[in-house]
Amino acid sequence: MSYLEHINYPEDLRKLNVNELPQLCDELRHFIIEQMAQHPGHLGSSLGVIELTVAIHYVFDTPNDKLVWDVGHQAYCHKILTGRKDQFYTNRCYGGISGFPRREESVYDTFGTGHSSTSISAALGMAMAAKMNGDVKRNHIAVIGDGAVGGGMAFEAMNQAGYRNVNMLVILNDNKISIDKSTGAMSKHLLSLTSSPSYNRFKNKLWNVLTFRTNKANHFTDHLGKIGNVIKGYILGGSNLFQSLGYRYFGPAEGHDVIQLVKTLQSLKELPGLKLLHILTVKGKGLELAEHNQTAYHAPGKFNPDTGQILKSNTENMPPKYQDVFGTTILEFARQDEKVVGITPAMATGCSLTIMDKEFPERVFDVGIAEQHAVTFSAGLATEGYIPFCNIYSTFLQRGYDQVIHDVALQKLPVIFCIDRAGLVGEDGSTHQGSFDLAFLRSVPNLIISSPLNEHELRNLMFTAYQNAKQGGLPFVIRYPRGRGVLTDWHNEPEKLEIGKSRLLRDGEKVLVLSIGPLGNSVEQALDNLAAQGINAAHADIRFLKPLDTTLLTEMASRFPRWISVEDGTEKGGLFSALSEFLSERELSNQLHHIALPDRFISHGDIPHLYQEVGFDVAHIQQVIKDTWQ
Amino acid sequence: MSYLEHINYPEDLRKLNVNELPQLCDELRHFIIEQMAQHPGHLGSSLGVIELTVAIHYVFDTPNDKLVWDVGHQAYCHKILTGRKDQFYTNRCYGGISGFPRREESVYDTFGTGHSSTSISAALGMAMAAKMNGDVKRNHIAVIGDGAVGGGMAFEAMNQAGYRNVNMLVILNDNKISIDKSTGAMSKHLLSLTSSPSYNRFKNKLWNVLTFRTNKANHFTDHLGKIGNVIKGYILGGSNLFQSLGYRYFGPAEGHDVIQLVKTLQSLKELPGLKLLHILTVKGKGLELAEHNQTAYHAPGKFNPDTGQILKSNTENMPPKYQDVFGTTILEFARQDEKVVGITPAMATGCSLTIMDKEFPERVFDVGIAEQHAVTFSAGLATEGYIPFCNIYSTFLQRGYDQVIHDVALQKLPVIFCIDRAGLVGEDGSTHQGSFDLAFLRSVPNLIISSPLNEHELRNLMFTAYQNAKQGGLPFVIRYPRGRGVLTDWHNEPEKLEIGKSRLLRDGEKVLVLSIGPLGNSVEQALDNLAAQGINAAHADIRFLKPLDTTLLTEMASRFPRWISVEDGTEKGGLFSALSEFLSERELSNQLHHIALPDRFISHGDIPHLYQEVGFDVAHIQQVIKDTWQ
Repeated sequence: MSYLEHINYPEDLRKLNVNELPQLCDELRHFIIEQMAQHPGHLGSSLGVIELTVAIHYVFDTPNDKLVWDVGHQAYCHKILTGRKDQFYTNRCYGGISGFPRREESVYDTFGTGHSSTSISAALGMAMAAKMNGDVKRNHIAVIGDGAVGGGMAFEAMNQAGYRNVNMLVILNDNKISIDKSTGAMSKHLLSLTSSPSYNRFKNKLWNVLTFRTNKANHFTDHLGKIGNVIKGYILGGSNLFQSLGYRYFGPAEGHDVIQLVKTLQSLKELPGLKLLHILTVKGKGLELAEHNQTAYHAPGKFNPDTGQILKSNTENMPPKYQDVFGTTILEFARQDEKVVGITPAMATGCSLTIMDKEFPERVFDVGIAEQHAVTFSAGLATEGYIPFCNIYSTFLQRGYDQVIHDVALQKLPVIFCIDRAGLVGEDGSTHQGSFDLAFLRSVPNLIISSPLNEHELRNLMFTAYQNAKQGGLPFVIRYPRGRGVLTDWHNEPEKLEIGKSRLLRDGEKVLVLSIGPLGNSVEQALDNLAAQGINAAHADIRFLKPLDTTLLTEMASRFPRWISVEDGTEKGGLFSALSEFLSERELSNQLHHIALPDRFISHGDIPHLYQEVGFDVAHIQQVIKDTWQ
Repeated sequence: MSYLEHINYPEDLRKLNVNELPQLCDELRHFIIEQMAQHPGHLGSSLGVIELTVAIHYVFDTPNDKLVWDVGHQAYCHKILTGRKDQFYTNRCYGGISGFPRREESVYDTFGTGHSSTSISAALGMAMAAKMNGDVKRNHIAVIGDGAVGGGMAFEAMNQAGYRNVNMLVILNDNKISIDKSTGAMSKHLLSLTSSPSYNRFKNKLWNVLTFRTNKANHFTDHLGKIGNVIKGYILGGSNLFQSLGYRYFGPAEGHDVIQLVKTLQSLKELPGLKLLHILTVKGKGLELAEHNQTAYHAPGKFNPDTGQILKSNTENMPPKYQDVFGTTILEFARQDEKVVGITPAMATGCSLTIMDKEFPERVFDVGIAEQHAVTFSAGLATEGYIPFCNIYSTFLQRGYDQVIHDVALQKLPVIFCIDRAGLVGEDGSTHQGSFDLAFLRSVPNLIISSPLNEHELRNLMFTAYQNAKQGGLPFVIRYPRGRGVLTDWHNEPEKLEIGKSRLLRDGEKVLVLSIGPLGNSVEQALDNLAAQGINAAHADIRFLKPLDTTLLTEMASRFPRWISVEDGTEKGGLFSALSEFLSERELSNQLHHIALPDRFISHGDIPHLYQEVGFDVAHIQQVIKDTWQ
């Protein structure tokens, strides 16, 4: 008998008897595995919170009670239970539902997420609103992982919440892993909360005492709470970070026992004020291979739903990922120079810094979800003569912007920023597109900003940046996209480039295309096609957005009356703007068209669809060149 | 007898007997008060750390041992003791020494600061470098205040440090105040560490036991340390946040007893690993009025060195500060609409949100040094129909950039950002200039970006933003500078403007000046002067950088062949770029000159000097117009 079949909304779920919930969880797990085997997404974290999701919607009066999912990639079960079961097969597809909560998608998605560590801030805003409205009953629940809770922003929010008397429950979903293994003292602390032997001896009894008390909320006095905390504190060796911040701490509780979770949440629901429930879950729960290889199954792509085996596509003879070119190249530098270090905020696997980590673990620093710190920590290393390659995704560097300005650029420290996931990223959608980095970095003085055309150029730019840092040069940015390059024979001997030097890739007449980054390869294709039609436009690889090659541009301005700029970043502030400014400054009247991201957020979908939408496909580039030619 | 006379560097200091240090501290205090009475700066915090500064340089081998001052405005005594005593009278003056540590100024300034919460990241980078170099002896000291330690970035760094075995001492300078009173659970926690009655009973004895142990570092085993911690934890009621994060916690210690501080630091110096020393200081120590009015004496301006009395300049008949216009106006809205709320990250006095706070404390949220949280908390409030005015200085909004993009703009939540200290701020210098906001915000989709010409316009824009938010419109940015406006009769009845509508302030011929913000007043002066010379250029107040008034611009393009853009922001990405893009897009060949901040960091000094340096003075504006006219 299938429960899930009849459940579309939490109100359907609430009609079940609590003893029926375990079977529903099994069905949900089965459904998610079946679906995701074909329609890839964030598998591991979603499987880990099935029981929690069911319990929350069963106990709380969503959407009146407010539920915020941190990061949100674990919210698949939530989506299925809140009206999106039948659309779930469109998850992350172009035109389909988003892989993250979106306010526009459902009233149950109270706050859109995607980046980490925002949930407590948002939930606190809602809780404070309720308080100002005189509503003391409404519940506010933030679900946050053990990786995300280490992000500075989460701490800022916990800090304010601990000072204000609001009705909020923070559920700390502790699975010991973000994408890679969680790092940092917070992880150690959570482990100590969980595994202290003396604690375990007392745990069940103590837990029962505390939950018993919470069942009688009216009698649960501060005094009793304090005694509980003191006892727990004593057993734990004296310290509980959450208690320090004014939270009533409960847990750790087993996160896959849905019946127990329901009871616990029912107790906590009756307890007003600020609470933190620490639950232990297993990422990938219920799919054996996923449980045992959590990083690979974070987002595994297609897999066999029965065995869990990941379906490998044939990648032989395919160009490498830019990520692996980065990883291989930094390893080569690290072998030759002990001052080379790698820093990344929780993206070691994603950016392939793992390649260096295997050989030089002591010189690779995964600092956890902590972009701000990652940047300034790199700056600190640079003051001591180390050569830090700080690898951050474009969208997450937005979190370290002030540190790039204040700690790196202002002090002219030779940090090398490798900005991964620049340009459109595809299925992760609007929260993750790397649309803004060219623009927001170009305004910052003292930065060298570059983007490679292909794998050779990535290696050349990394080598140039490395040599520049060795000589105490300016900070250096290299931005490149997610995924594969264009060269199968990619492993060149890296070459030192002249900083700020663009190059003419092909000469021509009338029209000049000026591109930065790998979109230049599509320009080349378009020009190949057009050559057959007798259209011979020229093409320059700008390579360095900053400093701009004004010598080449001046020469080009006199030769080509019509220009077309091409970049995989926003049209407001990047290459198009730089060239417009150049023309203004030199009082040149060259025509300048542009191909760039439009000034709106770009949603999720596969790259070919998205490229078509924004005009990055070869056909459109070709059309623009042709129109300009005529 | 004067000690200070003979002390220019720490090596001189170290020749003194420890018993001579109290007198030196008196002399330093006297020197700083005398100097700052005439040459204004950050008085309160500098007076608070005199004993600490002397003790650190006495005990540690600076500059070989690495000392990082968080924020750095408390580093005056440090500057005096490290070769800058004789230049101290030039502190914060144009061409003089900086009010913050600067690497280029001294080898003792190991890391430039200005923004808060960066010190632990930087010191950790240095400590990790020492570790990789095999140097286990070198000490790394970060001095951070109780306000700054609540910033998310500091937590991120503490989190990583607690996981790594490095030689680092964090000194937590707890004076219970940042600029305004410190808020948040961290403050409460620090207070509980300090004031627990049971703790105070045990304090002296326990402290002696612990410092005794540290004197015998070789015998100070983990076991003993643990016992100490457990006992302290027990007494404290079970929780010490720093211990949770893996720090050996010492304190709290009296921060004005220099002899005891020296002994304590000597003990801690011998103890390898990660330590946190919590000291209690009084902001403004030694100047009675400053001790009792700490917010006013944070940076009091000129005062009588004997009495401490602040010298009031005559402000009668002067235009109001933009800050007070903001404060008064939001109060007026708050009186009429209970949904109006004010949020600021630790800038309540500076931005005059205190004006609303006096009448509606329950609707004003000073969230502490927590820009990221401030933005997303505002977004959370907006989801519930509240109308948040989020007031952040331009330079600090760099810390909340991702949240503006990801939590506000993407979700189209009607948060109103009042960006204070936009443009040049003067004496605080390069870390604090509001140079980049126009540029980095313009790239973000869905934002309305505006800047008022004067006080009337600030009120009009605030009213427009408020009405827009009430109707669920897009997020709205209003940026304005530090200091006084231009109108004595400023209190107009606010008027709703059409969003995206610029206005022609004066008509003319040939040349059109397009300005945004209060620099437009200087343009008006310049044009008044030029009119006498028969030069009749026109002037448009752009008012909205986004959306741009393309209707007006198109009309103006046909009437005025030469344009000059004027803005108090960087030339890369702001108004100049927007207009250059506009001309490119429309294939218009109007000439476009610009007056904007050059693409470099602007140092400290008084505004008239800085304006002259960057060409914002009336004479220069006039000259540019004249040159363009001819």
